[in-house]
Amino acid sequence: MEDLSFVPNLPNGPLDVYRNRASFDWKRLKLALEGDIDLLRLKYKIWHTLENDPLFAPNPVTPPVEEQKRITQLQLQKINQYKFLSNEMFNASYGKRTRTLMTINEAVQSLAPSVSVKMAIGIYLFSNALLSLGTERHLKFYEATIKDRKILASFALTEIAHGSDARLMRTTATYDPQTREFVINTPDFEAAKCWVGNLGRSCTHTLLFAQLVMPDGTNHGLHGFLVPVRDPKTLEVYPGLIVGDMGEKIGVNGIDNGFIMFNKYRIPRENLLNRTADVTEDGVYESSFSEPSRILGAALENLSAGRIGIMQESCHSISSVVAIAVRYAATRTQFGERDNETPLLEYELHQWRLFGYVAAAVVFRLYLQNFTQTYLKIVEKSNTGHRVDNLSEAVSEIHAMVSCSKPLLTWTVLEAAQQCREACGGHGYLKVANLGDIRSNHEPTVTYEGDNNVLSQQTGNWLLKQYEAVLSGHTVDSPLGTVAFLKEFRTILGQTFDCRSTGELKNSKFIISTYKWLICWILKYTHEKNEAELAKGLTKVQARNRSQVYRWRTLTRVYAEYLALVYCLEAIEKLEKSLVPVLERIFCLYGLWALDKHLVEMYQGGFSKGEDLAKLLRTAILELCGDLKGEIVSVVDALAPTDFVLNSVLGKSDGKLYQNLQKAFFSHPGAFERAKWWRDVVSKL
Amino acid sequence: MEDLSFVPNLPNGPLDVYRNRASFDWKRLKLALEGDIDLLRLKYKIWHTLENDPLFAPNPVTPPVEEQKRITQLQLQKINQYKFLSNEMFNASYGKRTRTLMTINEAVQSLAPSVSVKMAIGIYLFSNALLSLGTERHLKFYEATIKDRKILASFALTEIAHGSDARLMRTTATYDPQTREFVINTPDFEAAKCWVGNLGRSCTHTLLFAQLVMPDGTNHGLHGFLVPVRDPKTLEVYPGLIVGDMGEKIGVNGIDNGFIMFNKYRIPRENLLNRTADVTEDGVYESSFSEPSRILGAALENLSAGRIGIMQESCHSISSVVAIAVRYAATRTQFGERDNETPLLEYELHQWRLFGYVAAAVVFRLYLQNFTQTYLKIVEKSNTGHRVDNLSEAVSEIHAMVSCSKPLLTWTVLEAAQQCREACGGHGYLKVANLGDIRSNHEPTVTYEGDNNVLSQQTGNWLLKQYEAVLSGHTVDSPLGTVAFLKEFRTILGQTFDCRSTGELKNSKFIISTYKWLICWILKYTHEKNEAELAKGLTKVQARNRSQVYRWRTLTRVYAEYLALVYCLEAIEKLEKSLVPVLERIFCLYGLWALDKHLVEMYQGGFSKGEDLAKLLRTAILELCGDLKGEIVSVVDALAPTDFVLNSVLGKSDGKLYQNLQKAFFSHPGAFERAKWWRDVVSKL
Repeated sequence: MEDLSFVPNLPNGPLDVYRNRASFDWKRLKLALEGDIDLLRLKYKIWHTLENDPLFAPNPVTPPVEEQKRITQLQLQKINQYKFLSNEMFNASYGKRTRTLMTINEAVQSLAPSVSVKMAIGIYLFSNALLSLGTERHLKFYEATIKDRKILASFALTEIAHGSDARLMRTTATYDPQTREFVINTPDFEAAKCWVGNLGRSCTHTLLFAQLVMPDGTNHGLHGFLVPVRDPKTLEVYPGLIVGDMGEKIGVNGIDNGFIMFNKYRIPRENLLNRTADVTEDGVYESSFSEPSRILGAALENLSAGRIGIMQESCHSISSVVAIAVRYAATRTQFGERDNETPLLEYELHQWRLFGYVAAAVVFRLYLQNFTQTYLKIVEKSNTGHRVDNLSEAVSEIHAMVSCSKPLLTWTVLEAAQQCREACGGHGYLKVANLGDIRSNHEPTVTYEGDNNVLSQQTGNWLLKQYEAVLSGHTVDSPLGTVAFLKEFRTILGQTFDCRSTGELKNSKFIISTYKWLICWILKYTHEKNEAELAKGLTKVQARNRSQVYRWRTLTRVYAEYLALVYCLEAIEKLEKSLVPVLERIFCLYGLWALDKHLVEMYQGGFSKGEDLAKLLRTAILELCGDLKGEIVSVVDALAPTDFVLNSVLGKSDGKLYQNLQKAFFSHPGAFERAKWWRDVVSKL
Repeated sequence: MEDLSFVPNLPNGPLDVYRNRASFDWKRLKLALEGDIDLLRLKYKIWHTLENDPLFAPNPVTPPVEEQKRITQLQLQKINQYKFLSNEMFNASYGKRTRTLMTINEAVQSLAPSVSVKMAIGIYLFSNALLSLGTERHLKFYEATIKDRKILASFALTEIAHGSDARLMRTTATYDPQTREFVINTPDFEAAKCWVGNLGRSCTHTLLFAQLVMPDGTNHGLHGFLVPVRDPKTLEVYPGLIVGDMGEKIGVNGIDNGFIMFNKYRIPRENLLNRTADVTEDGVYESSFSEPSRILGAALENLSAGRIGIMQESCHSISSVVAIAVRYAATRTQFGERDNETPLLEYELHQWRLFGYVAAAVVFRLYLQNFTQTYLKIVEKSNTGHRVDNLSEAVSEIHAMVSCSKPLLTWTVLEAAQQCREACGGHGYLKVANLGDIRSNHEPTVTYEGDNNVLSQQTGNWLLKQYEAVLSGHTVDSPLGTVAFLKEFRTILGQTFDCRSTGELKNSKFIISTYKWLICWILKYTHEKNEAELAKGLTKVQARNRSQVYRWRTLTRVYAEYLALVYCLEAIEKLEKSLVPVLERIFCLYGLWALDKHLVEMYQGGFSKGEDLAKLLRTAILELCGDLKGEIVSVVDALAPTDFVLNSVLGKSDGKLYQNLQKAFFSHPGAFERAKWWRDVVSKL
């Protein structure tokens, strides 16, 4: 057994009543959820280091927005100094290095979300983009960013009037052969690049996506350019640029989101990121598709890495919110008789409100851990030039998986944060409960890196394509096998519900096979609608738009849940036996709890008639909640970070709820002072 | 036709394309939604007055928490000076005066939510409580509060360790016959009163609920006491009290929520609010139930008035968020061809995401307007000593109605705010979009004045009682007639779904009768479960706790939706003909959209089998969305307050989305400045 003594023991206290009932060792589960002891050790090292650094001390009062930006910038520099990414890691394999970077990102995000965004955009994604879109001539920028941390970058893609539809971006980079420069121009405010993280106050460079235009006016479409924005010595913006900070947002106010307009701003020809296409000195556009597998790999990396990072961060956020709410529920009593009041955790309604999200947190983490490994293996192979069978198809499948999983995870976490806040009642509304801040900082994930509603349509397109292939007798292009079962869709659709007891529902076989039925049925239902709209004479785009609600949209959700379940199940099968019973229950709870939201489709599609399906499925959910009551505190112990990171007066691991509240109230700055402004108001009272 | 010229016309602009398609005059709809031209005029008067007062100017940057409290207190004093409640209103009937006060509260809340909470708690609810719980001896406090505005009060009920279960409060007020005083004491921090709005910094008095204890130790339970807290001349807290401010919260930070601990703090005997019980000078406890109808009326008032106020405010919040999102959707384009991009409003998915909430906003307002009148009539009759038939039953029914409607409205508004934020994409995440602030300020409503999950159980109790009466051959006690149909529940349960076309679903008859079926079926289902648990030997409380999920909880939700629909329908029938077509569609959209969430119960209960029900119902919803596309901008014009009040860069009535964004960005304080903290970070970059 691995030595887990670096994970601090939990203090004894009121939570012991529940902890003593758990069937497993919470530290073993924690390791299983992390999947790698070195990464877990790194996470604790980061947490302890930052806990000992006063710059990272939590603040019971939100600092002014500009002060948040200042602190975030200082924190980033401090993290650079700590060099959590060791030098040997630079020489490690791509997969190992990337997983380590992801772990650093997760660890930082869970206590300082603005810093992690700043770091992820400004250092990791930018330097990776240089490798994948640039060539040798850009290596010096790569080194300056990831090794020397002299460059802090940003990504300028979205424009004021165009977000999801990148084709219509209007910023241009016109080549001038006289000076061998690109002249970048913003036609008007609507084409200003905006929502650019790090741009408002701090970045030195931006990776700009602009229409590459030749002197004769030919437009070659969007290309990436490396654009200097600020003098690193003075943080003054260069002339020719109008750069503004976008001001206050709902959350992540440590990030300086900015907008930028270019007034015929010139950059050297060499600043075009020219892996896939270049412009010669004389002004000839040359497209190079010499290494298709590497380009595909690069594309995959750029499309998916950011979204996988968002999902990993989401897993940390949901872990934190459920830990807070469950620990609160175990220590807060309500109703019953004096001296014998009932903990909230004992109420079936309260279990049902929370446990589905706890199960989601576990399933998502095992899913993502497993999926990330698959993903990194494929990217690594393609990066190193190895021939990968069906690489292009694998890229498509991974893109489809990520495009529906990011919506599923980010939306579920948002709901979880809200439910956990409500489950903590009024005390959950306190800033020091941390539920509000976690929620607000998480919230933009449902919109950025692809708006969830738009992004998931790409999954729908891919699924329909596979279904149509089967219909017309072709094979399914699913190298990862996620929809290999489609070839049997007619058999699958013939299945009906025939369970007589909840026990028959509480197993993975029922859950997985029901999901297969659901995917097949909704695919059929969506395809029929789409065909009907096409038959009316609608264009492809119009037909698709008329098949979203209740169809395409539901389809991609169901497929995402299925992926999470299948990958989670695979991960559970590899784990030590002592953890299997609790994880199987958690798996079943998430599966049935997720299926509960699709009962209408099951009735509508004839999977079942009458009372049994809904009644048995829902009874099974409540039974599982009851079964997990004794486990759940230890499950959230395994999910939760340290108390310092969790930073919640309601969710401390000592369970001393009221003593912690008292301390927070009494030590709140100025709590007992007369209002400083009493003279302003008293004469008029 | 009434002269509505006091409602300013809307500026011409890009929204005209949609406005020109509307079938009705938006100002007529606005009047219909308000229900009274004098109240509408008052609202505009308040909005215009505050727009011209720099103290109420919106701030693009959130001020520090203490500054928010200072501004809120100054704003309250300014509103007191404006005397929006005219002197003649003091002599008007109870109903008229209360509706006017409610309108003032709504108007203020929609632009300054903290001020309205401060005013509602500190002035209106407190002075009403003095009238209903106190006697003549407390009239001077009443006058000082509502007329002279010399007192600002608070309500101290909730304790740190006890919220919903008021029985177990531990603060005591022990009578001392020697000095003829009550001695108030807090045993420990867990019994500190908390979440007391206005207490942290500003109130002069609090209305305390404490256990009344006699010298011999007899405890007579919770009673109300008027307790001086601060010297009004200095705002110093009196000795014997520990008063603290609770610090930062997720929203409404202009409110100074506080906690208080009493250290044998003495108040005069006369400060007991003694309408229902008193203690003689010598220390004899006397309960007086001489005027049961007045006491009942008072109880009704106290229980329900605050919750009705929350619902009214919720209606304003949902009106604002849907107005912002719909105007944005009408002016923001995405995809399509250059120069011919498609407004978001044209996408079926986008319509479906938003229009249900627009319909909810309209239905809720008509419901509440109608219900408030019914409510006030009953209270007025009981207050004036008129004998009201079945007063006690009417009180119970109204309590049941309010206890499920407050959850329905507040939760729906919370969802709406979130959906509207997401529908505005990244720009919706800006503070200046105002969606975040509206959401954060609305959020506590789902917890306070009765946590939604706990409060709605009271509705469930009442409904089960009525159902059990019918089962045992007794009559239903429903003086307002909301569940009079229960007497036919066997016939109703025999109904099945037999529609063949969406047209048969898109009418009020189908919707109302389906709701009746649903209520009857879920009642039966809940009752059976409850009986089964009792039969197992569980106590009443235990059995009820095991029947919440999927049963009691769903039941109260369905009943609340039914109430909203029935009262809305009654209101529509009285309106001018020009508005009826659009309102009928809105009614049907809300009805079917709400039913969509109960399809599982309809299948489970045998109301229908197979594909038709779900398919027709959902097709009908999408048809209604399409039908309303041309009306929806004018509908939100009718719902929206003035631009000043709406305070959203995305939702201005001129529809000049990008010009407004540009202005907001360019005028944001310090937008283009180099970071003031550049020296702190530059050397280390």
